[in-house]
Amino acid sequence: MRQRVDAARVGHLATTSADGRPHVVPCCFASRGDTLYTAVDAKPKKTARLQRIRNLEANPVAALVVDHYADDWTELWWVRVDAEARIVTTGPELDAALDLLTTKYEQYRRDRPPGPVIALDVRTWRAWP
Amino acid sequence: MRQRVDAARVGHLATTSADGRPHVVPCCFASRGDTLYTAVDAKPKKTARLQRIRNLEANPVAALVVDHYADDWTELWWVRVDAEARIVTTGPELDAALDLLTTKYEQYRRDRPPGPVIALDVRTWRAWP
Repeated sequence: MRQRVDAARVGHLATTSADGRPHVVPCCFASRGDTLYTAVDAKPKKTARLQRIRNLEANPVAALVVDHYADDWTELWWVRVDAEARIVTTGPELDAALDLLTTKYEQYRRDRPPGPVIALDVRTWRAWP
Repeated sequence: MRQRVDAARVGHLATTSADGRPHVVPCCFASRGDTLYTAVDAKPKKTARLQRIRNLEANPVAALVVDHYADDWTELWWVRVDAEARIVTTGPELDAALDLLTTKYEQYRRDRPPGPVIALDVRTWRAWP
């Protein structure tokens, strides 16, 4: 499960708004142990307006799925984590998270994101099949 | 937007549980106008235990995103719909939905799903970039 998550280039992050509406967005991420990090690709002034951030501030529960699609349905798989999210805006954890992301993604090395990042502390790992 | 959704082989469906926990799962789907249909790939006795079904019975609001990932990030895109979900267990809408799904997916022609299907009545279409 962890190898598949570590190797994935993209995941899908689901959050819930204060009034119970689900939201889902594809995102790049990097993992260290039981925490996944995903950068917020927006200028600081715009960050607060991102739906996923508003949702996590109201309800920190998140889910992220990594999966493989193929027209041969015997090859399908997914790994899903249920997590508690934290918005990391400063400090050594932000630096370490950005290091992880720039190590994984060459695109971030060319244009290092300033942060914040969303830290997803995984509570449950699930896999199918 | 609609062409990208129609052509997509897989989407990611987000729902929210009665206690506000987000859930996300990859799914095949077919669309007709402003309604998307996704089959529940489980035996009838097991269907009621699927988290997405339990969630939609408690809270019918759903979101589905279709997106394209590429290591060239200038090629990224997504289309997301916010929808009201209905569980369709019988009748002409079930038959029509299964016809749409079997037309789109050769895999379903070989093994037509019995239903139910989830009907997602789209309220909002959004696209990025």
